[in-house]
Amino acid sequence: RQRVRQFLEHRFVQRAVIALIVVNAVTIGCETSAYLMERAGGLLHVIDRVALAVFTVEIAARLYAYGREFWTDPWNWFDTVIVGLALIPASGPTSVLRALRILRALRLVSAVPSMRRVVGALLTAVPGMASIIGLLLLMIYIAAVIATKLFGEIVPERFDALPTSLFTLFQIMTGDDWGNVAQEVMEQKPWAWVFFIAYILISTFVALNLFIAVVVNAMND
Amino acid sequence: RQRVRQFLEHRFVQRAVIALIVVNAVTIGCETSAYLMERAGGLLHVIDRVALAVFTVEIAARLYAYGREFWTDPWNWFDTVIVGLALIPASGPTSVLRALRILRALRLVSAVPSMRRVVGALLTAVPGMASIIGLLLLMIYIAAVIATKLFGEIVPERFDALPTSLFTLFQIMTGDDWGNVAQEVMEQKPWAWVFFIAYILISTFVALNLFIAVVVNAMND
Amino acid sequence: RQRVRQFLEHRFVQRAVIALIVVNAVTIGCETSAYLMERAGGLLHVIDRVALAVFTVEIAARLYAYGREFWTDPWNWFDTVIVGLALIPASGPTSVLRALRILRALRLVSAVPSMRRVVGALLTAVPGMASIIGLLLLMIYIAAVIATKLFGEIVPERFDALPTSLFTLFQIMTGDDWGNVAQEVMEQKPWAWVFFIAYILISTFVALNLFIAVVVNAMND
Amino acid sequence: RQRVRQFLEHRFVQRAVIALIVVNAVTIGCETSAYLMERAGGLLHVIDRVALAVFTVEIAARLYAYGREFWTDPWNWFDTVIVGLALIPASGPTSVLRALRILRALRLVSAVPSMRRVVGALLTAVPGMASIIGLLLLMIYIAAVIATKLFGEIVPERFDALPTSLFTLFQIMTGDDWGNVAQEVMEQKPWAWVFFIAYILISTFVALNLFIAVVVNAMND
Ligand code: NA
Ligand code: NA
Repeated sequence: RQRVRQFLEHRFVQRAVIALIVVNAVTIGCETSAYLMERAGGLLHVIDRVALAVFTVEIAARLYAYGREFWTDPWNWFDTVIVGLALIPASGPTSVLRALRILRALRLVSAVPSMRRVVGALLTAVPGMASIIGLLLLMIYIAAVIATKLFGEIVPERFDALPTSLFTLFQIMTGDDWGNVAQEVMEQKPWAWVFFIAYILISTFVALNLFIAVVVNAMND
Repeated sequence: RQRVRQFLEHRFVQRAVIALIVVNAVTIGCETSAYLMERAGGLLHVIDRVALAVFTVEIAARLYAYGREFWTDPWNWFDTVIVGLALIPASGPTSVLRALRILRALRLVSAVPSMRRVVGALLTAVPGMASIIGLLLLMIYIAAVIATKLFGEIVPERFDALPTSLFTLFQIMTGDDWGNVAQEVMEQKPWAWVFFIAYILISTFVALNLFIAVVVNAMND
Repeated sequence: RQRVRQFLEHRFVQRAVIALIVVNAVTIGCETSAYLMERAGGLLHVIDRVALAVFTVEIAARLYAYGREFWTDPWNWFDTVIVGLALIPASGPTSVLRALRILRALRLVSAVPSMRRVVGALLTAVPGMASIIGLLLLMIYIAAVIATKLFGEIVPERFDALPTSLFTLFQIMTGDDWGNVAQEVMEQKPWAWVFFIAYILISTFVALNLFIAVVVNAMND
Repeated sequence: RQRVRQFLEHRFVQRAVIALIVVNAVTIGCETSAYLMERAGGLLHVIDRVALAVFTVEIAARLYAYGREFWTDPWNWFDTVIVGLALIPASGPTSVLRALRILRALRLVSAVPSMRRVVGALLTAVPGMASIIGLLLLMIYIAAVIATKLFGEIVPERFDALPTSLFTLFQIMTGDDWGNVAQEVMEQKPWAWVFFIAYILISTFVALNLFIAVVVNAMND
């Protein structure tokens, strides 16, 4: 066990794994090109299989070397899920699962220490934002119910049901094309500007405070 | 009275109220779905009535338990208005009022202490922003009067009257589709870019300083 | 002189001037409405004349009371220009000048001390930003010359001459509709994405640093 | 050598060079105007040649005066490349190279000390952002591969190949017109909102942290 550990933690082995992750990310990208698939499809396929095999063996080796300790590091869970996910599509040509194979490139994050630290820092910021995110979600939900009831029959392609309204209101919160949406509604309900402007002001103000919470958190570290 | 107070402040009772607020928010959301209304419309209606009854009784109990003290907490005013608003539509099918029933979900904010604190913090930031908000409103008003006079006859669907211009200029301030609006005007008044670019620069600069005022306030706390 | 001064600085007189500025701003706004002009056009006109007369007399009185000192305060220059500008259109129906009469509402800024302080604070931030603003202008100018030469014949309605390109590139910097502009060009010059993406990245980065300069300045005060 | 150095560092000479850079930037801008080219094309051409000659001589003089030391200052490399680039088009009418002549205006940055400092400060911020930029690029690449595989056949004009998808996803990250792109896809794959909303939330969150990294860096200086 000690030897497997030393082997896995050897700088050369870790760099080789990183290199293979990058190569594999590139070959999966190349597979989207009909031109490259025609000329080098077989090669791309072989590299993909080899990479997957190496990743599986590597995780198995880490599991053997570290035993129970393996499961204490969330990054190991991450790697296991990513590689496990890549093993499923072998059982059938489910298109979404095949597309998700590229998620394997995310192993770059767990393999490069500086990336690991950055993502770790990003994730520690999330819990402190929970209350404001909850408030934002509550607000969007309330606005979506109101919009569905009031505007559902006027502009059905944007507000006919709760999911459609939630999508439209998320779009409006990002500021994309909201003027057109509002004007379509205002053609029949001229007072609708009250709803849209109130929604934009409140959601921007809450989002701004979410943003400030993140900045202030970051400054304190 | 002391007993009613103890009952209301009991952890179990408060959690039950929070749960009922969430359930009620979900059922009001479900009422927007024709499919669910057909199958479970009666049930949804009953839950809604029960929730409203419970909320009314709870506020009445709080009013009894705390007496005059009740009116010193603005959150109690908030709850009373929200629930009172929900009692009005019983007297007639006014559609806007029916749509506003979902505002009851906002009681989640007053019932969950951490939400209460977040919204409290957001609101304390507002007075410090009053001067800049006033400046921003003054600026939009002035720009709207100028735009109505200069562009009202060229692009009437955007600038024919003061309210239309105010809406258009608010839209331009958010950066939505302003290039098209400006170009419609510039087809007949080629110098109009001066107005639009000056407006965007000034309003962005003032809004940026509004934003900084909020951040600096937040940092000092 | 001392008496005129005391009169002008009396709280009641200052509030009356502020009230008149607000009333006048409202009446000029009302003049944009054909409906109101028909019913109360004469009244609106009279109020406007009276307000202008009062403002002129007030400035003349200040000039008499403070003498040379009057010209040391930039806000006095500001008031004089604004009111002077309002006196010009009397000599002819120049439409742009008539539209600019509403700028009189800006006197609210010089008359209300808290507004005065806010605008003062905003303006003191400008000199510290001069270098970055210069850099941003230089960058937009260079990009506009390149775009005019490379894309002027492909998409003439957006890049046919330097002023058109400057407008389009300002629009792209604000993120409005840039995808469409880029795609129109890329239909004939597929490599044009290099130009647009480089432009967006660089201009956003410079604008971000402009923003940071403002924030850091504000924090130090 | 000492004399050449003193001459080059003389305030008057440096101001003359700055003035010539500005004049040359203006004449290159004027060359985009057919009207000006017809009237003063010859003059513009002569000024351009003279400016280029002066810049070449100036760099040669600096090279002579400072010897090896010349190459230790990256701004000198910058000037040499910019002017060298301007010398190439003489050998043929390559249109892109001709358009890039305006890059000579960037010499203003190296010639004006305050500009030099601002750009220097901007560039020192870049290395600290490397990890987050890497993460952002990795994320866009992964999203582009997934989008190409899943949506390539539905909306080929936006997702038919990796480069197209990369462009579209960059556009979506800037918030431009993303609602339309998402809706085109959702017409055939209604669950596609999951992809777009996840992409927007994650990329905005990472970009926000990139932004914070820049601000925090700036504050520490
Ligand atoms: Na847009
Ligand atoms: Na936009």
